[in-house]
Amino acid sequence: MQYIAAAIAVFGSAIAAAYGNGKVISKTLESMTRQPEMAGQLRATMFIGVGIIEAVPILGIVIALLLVFK
Amino acid sequence: MQYIAAAIAVFGSAIAAAYGNGKVISKTLESMTRQPEMAGQLRATMFIGVGIIEAVPILGIVIALLLVFK
Amino acid sequence: MQYIAAAIAVFGSAIAAAYGNGKVISKTLESMTRQPEMAGQLRATMFIGVGIIEAVPILGIVIALLLVFK
Amino acid sequence: MQYIAAAIAVFGSAIAAAYGNGKVISKTLESMTRQPEMAGQLRATMFIGVGIIEAVPILGIVIALLLVFK
Amino acid sequence: MQYIAAAIAVFGSAIAAAYGNGKVISKTLESMTRQPEMAGQLRATMFIGVGIIEAVPILGIVIALLLVFK
Amino acid sequence: MQYIAAAIAVFGSAIAAAYGNGKVISKTLESMTRQPEMAGQLRATMFIGVGIIEAVPILGIVIALLLVFK
Amino acid sequence: MQYIAAAIAVFGSAIAAAYGNGKVISKTLESMTRQPEMAGQLRATMFIGVGIIEAVPILGIVIALLLVFK
Amino acid sequence: MQYIAAAIAVFGSAIAAAYGNGKVISKTLESMTRQPEMAGQLRATMFIGVGIIEAVPILGIVIALLLVFK
Amino acid sequence: MQYIAAAIAVFGSAIAAAYGNGKVISKTLESMTRQPEMAGQLRATMFIGVGIIEAVPILGIVIALLLVFK
Amino acid sequence: MQYIAAAIAVFGSAIAAAYGNGKVISKTLESMTRQPEMAGQLRATMFIGVGIIEAVPILGIVIALLLVFK
Amino acid sequence: MQYIAAAIAVFGSAIAAAYGNGKVISKTLESMTRQPEMAGQLRATMFIGVGIIEAVPILGIVIALLLVFK
Amino acid sequence: MQYIAAAIAVFGSAIAAAYGNGKVISKTLESMTRQPEMAGQLRATMFIGVGIIEAVPILGIVIALLLVFK
Amino acid sequence: MQYIAAAIAVFGSAIAAAYGNGKVISKTLESMTRQPEMAGQLRATMFIGVGIIEAVPILGIVIALLLVFK
Amino acid sequence: MQYIAAAIAVFGSAIAAAYGNGKVISKTLESMTRQPEMAGQLRATMFIGVGIIEAVPILGIVIALLLVFK
Repeated sequence: MQYIAAAIAVFGSAIAAAYGNGKVISKTLESMTRQPEMAGQLRATMFIGVGIIEAVPILGIVIALLLVFK
Repeated sequence: MQYIAAAIAVFGSAIAAAYGNGKVISKTLESMTRQPEMAGQLRATMFIGVGIIEAVPILGIVIALLLVFK
Repeated sequence: MQYIAAAIAVFGSAIAAAYGNGKVISKTLESMTRQPEMAGQLRATMFIGVGIIEAVPILGIVIALLLVFK
Repeated sequence: MQYIAAAIAVFGSAIAAAYGNGKVISKTLESMTRQPEMAGQLRATMFIGVGIIEAVPILGIVIALLLVFK
Repeated sequence: MQYIAAAIAVFGSAIAAAYGNGKVISKTLESMTRQPEMAGQLRATMFIGVGIIEAVPILGIVIALLLVFK
Repeated sequence: MQYIAAAIAVFGSAIAAAYGNGKVISKTLESMTRQPEMAGQLRATMFIGVGIIEAVPILGIVIALLLVFK
Repeated sequence: MQYIAAAIAVFGSAIAAAYGNGKVISKTLESMTRQPEMAGQLRATMFIGVGIIEAVPILGIVIALLLVFK
Repeated sequence: MQYIAAAIAVFGSAIAAAYGNGKVISKTLESMTRQPEMAGQLRATMFIGVGIIEAVPILGIVIALLLVFK
Repeated sequence: MQYIAAAIAVFGSAIAAAYGNGKVISKTLESMTRQPEMAGQLRATMFIGVGIIEAVPILGIVIALLLVFK
Repeated sequence: MQYIAAAIAVFGSAIAAAYGNGKVISKTLESMTRQPEMAGQLRATMFIGVGIIEAVPILGIVIALLLVFK
Repeated sequence: MQYIAAAIAVFGSAIAAAYGNGKVISKTLESMTRQPEMAGQLRATMFIGVGIIEAVPILGIVIALLLVFK
Repeated sequence: MQYIAAAIAVFGSAIAAAYGNGKVISKTLESMTRQPEMAGQLRATMFIGVGIIEAVPILGIVIALLLVFK
Repeated sequence: MQYIAAAIAVFGSAIAAAYGNGKVISKTLESMTRQPEMAGQLRATMFIGVGIIEAVPILGIVIALLLVFK
Repeated sequence: MQYIAAAIAVFGSAIAAAYGNGKVISKTLESMTRQPEMAGQLRATMFIGVGIIEAVPILGIVIALLLVFK
């Protein structure tokens, strides 16, 4: 049962990280194209955003590993 | 059974955090591109918003950890 | 069984809070960009709105904690 | 069984409140931006609307609490 | 079994009320912004509409309470 | 079993009534805003429409009550 | 089992009637606003349409009542 | 088991009839508004279309009645 | 079991026929409105199309009747 | 079990045929309206397309009949 | 069990073939209408594309037949 | 059990191949219509793309055949 | 059980590869049509992208083969 | 049970990687077409983004392999 639980946690974390990061990064690329002179500032905001979004999925992967090796 | 419960909580928290943060951060990037002189104020509002959105998913991760180590 | 119930409550609360807050905050950012001189009034309305939206999910987290420690 | 029932009621109430309030509040912000001189009247209508929308979810939370402590 | 039934009824009533009211109230706000001089007439129509929409969900909550205390 | 059946009937009736009425009333508000001089005629058509739409959900609530008290 | 069957039939009939009628009536309101001089003809077509759409859901309600009192 | 089967057939028939007829009738109303001088021809095509669409759902209701009285 | 099978076949046939015919007929109405002088040719194409689309659902109803009377 | 299998095959074939044919035929009608002088060539392409699309659903109906009479 | 498997394979193959072919053929019709002088080249590309798309569903039908006659 | 597994693999492969190829081929047709002088280069890119997309579904069909004859 | 697992892995890998590659390749075709002089550079980026996207599905197929021959 | 868990993890990882990478890479291609002189900078940002997105799915594949060989 704990293996299925680990798989569900991996499933959710992977999709969440891909959805959130994909949205932020593609919006950054779009914005950089519209205003090339703001590229640095936009990329900085992107790194902050990616860090915030990855926080919960990484915790989810940690919980999944805890469940696998339990 | 409690492992499945922890996984469901992780699943929901990860997707919720990614969806909410992804929406707010990508909208911030879009707004910064349109009005570069408001970048500071927008980023401040973004940090408040991200903090409010992360509150419930982090509580969800805490409940998941409680369920794993119970 | 009560652990699954707690997880379902966490799941719903997290997604509800992220959806509602994400919508309100991103709309605030968009409106601030269009009318910078109304930024203060919009942010005040945002705080009221976020408080109203968070009310039910926080009650949901409380019910989840009641179910975990029962 | 009653714990699952409480969780389903919390789930529905949280999502309903977040969806309805999120829609009304974000529309209020949008309208305030378009016609700043009507801000007071719009916010008054928003409070009435939020009160009407919250009525059923709060009853749902009450039913969930009845089921938890039964 | 009757607790689950009460929860399903609450679930449906909460989402239905939030969806219907959210749609009507946000459309009222939008219309008030476009034609401020019709605000009174629109709000009156909104109250009639909200009353009609709330009728069935309130009956649903009553049935849910009947099922909880049976 | 009959309680679940009553709950399913309530669920469907509530969502159907909210969806149909929400659509008709919000379209009435929109039309009244575009042509204020037709407000009376539109509201009359709205009442006919709401009556037709509510007919089946009210029958659904009646069937649900029959099932609860059987 | 027959109670569940009655509930499923009610569920489908209510949603079908609300969807179909909601679409036809809201389109009638929209068309009346665009061409006020055709209001009578459009309303006549609406009554024919509503009658045709209600035919199958009303038969569904009849079948549901047959199942409840069987 | 045959009652559930009858309910599924009613469910599908009701939704199919409402979807198909709702689409055709609302498109007829829209077309009549754009070209009022073709109203008769459009309504004739609508009656043919409604007849063709109702054919299969009515057969579905007949099958449902066969299953109920078997 | 064969009754459920008949119901599933009816369900699919009814929805398929309504979806396909609804799409073709509403598109015919739209095209007739744009080019009234082609009404005859379009209606002829519509009859061919409706015949092709109805072929498989009618076979599905036949299979459902075979299953009911088996 | 084989009856359910036949029903699933009918279900898929009916929806597939209706979806594919409905799309092709409605696009043909639209194209004929835009360029009436190409009506013959478009209808010829439509017949080829309808034949290709119907091939697999007809095979599905054949398999369903094989399963019913087995 | 193998009959259900055959039905699932038929279901997937039919929907896949109808979706893919419907998309390609309707796009061909649209393109032929915009540039009639390229009709031949577009139809050639359509035949290649239809052949590529049909390959996997036809293999799926073959597997379904293998399962039926096993 | 292995027959169901083969059917699921066929189901996924067929839908994946049809979705991916349908998207690429219809986009090729659209692009050829806009820039007829690039038809050769676009068709070459289409063949590469179709080859890449078909790779995984063909492997899925191979695995399905392995499962059927095991 | 392991056959079902292999099928689920194939299902996910096939759909993922088709979705991702279909999106990238069709966007490449669109971009090549808009700026023909960048065709080489775009195709190079496409190959990198396709390689990155195929990596995880190919690993999924490898895991499926491991499960089949275990 | 652990095989099913590995398959669910593969399923989620493959779809997440394909969705996220597909979105980022296709947006990069679109941006390169609009501003060819920024091609280098955009491709650099794409590589960073792809690396961030692939991190969690690769961890998911690792967990799946752990589960297969356990």
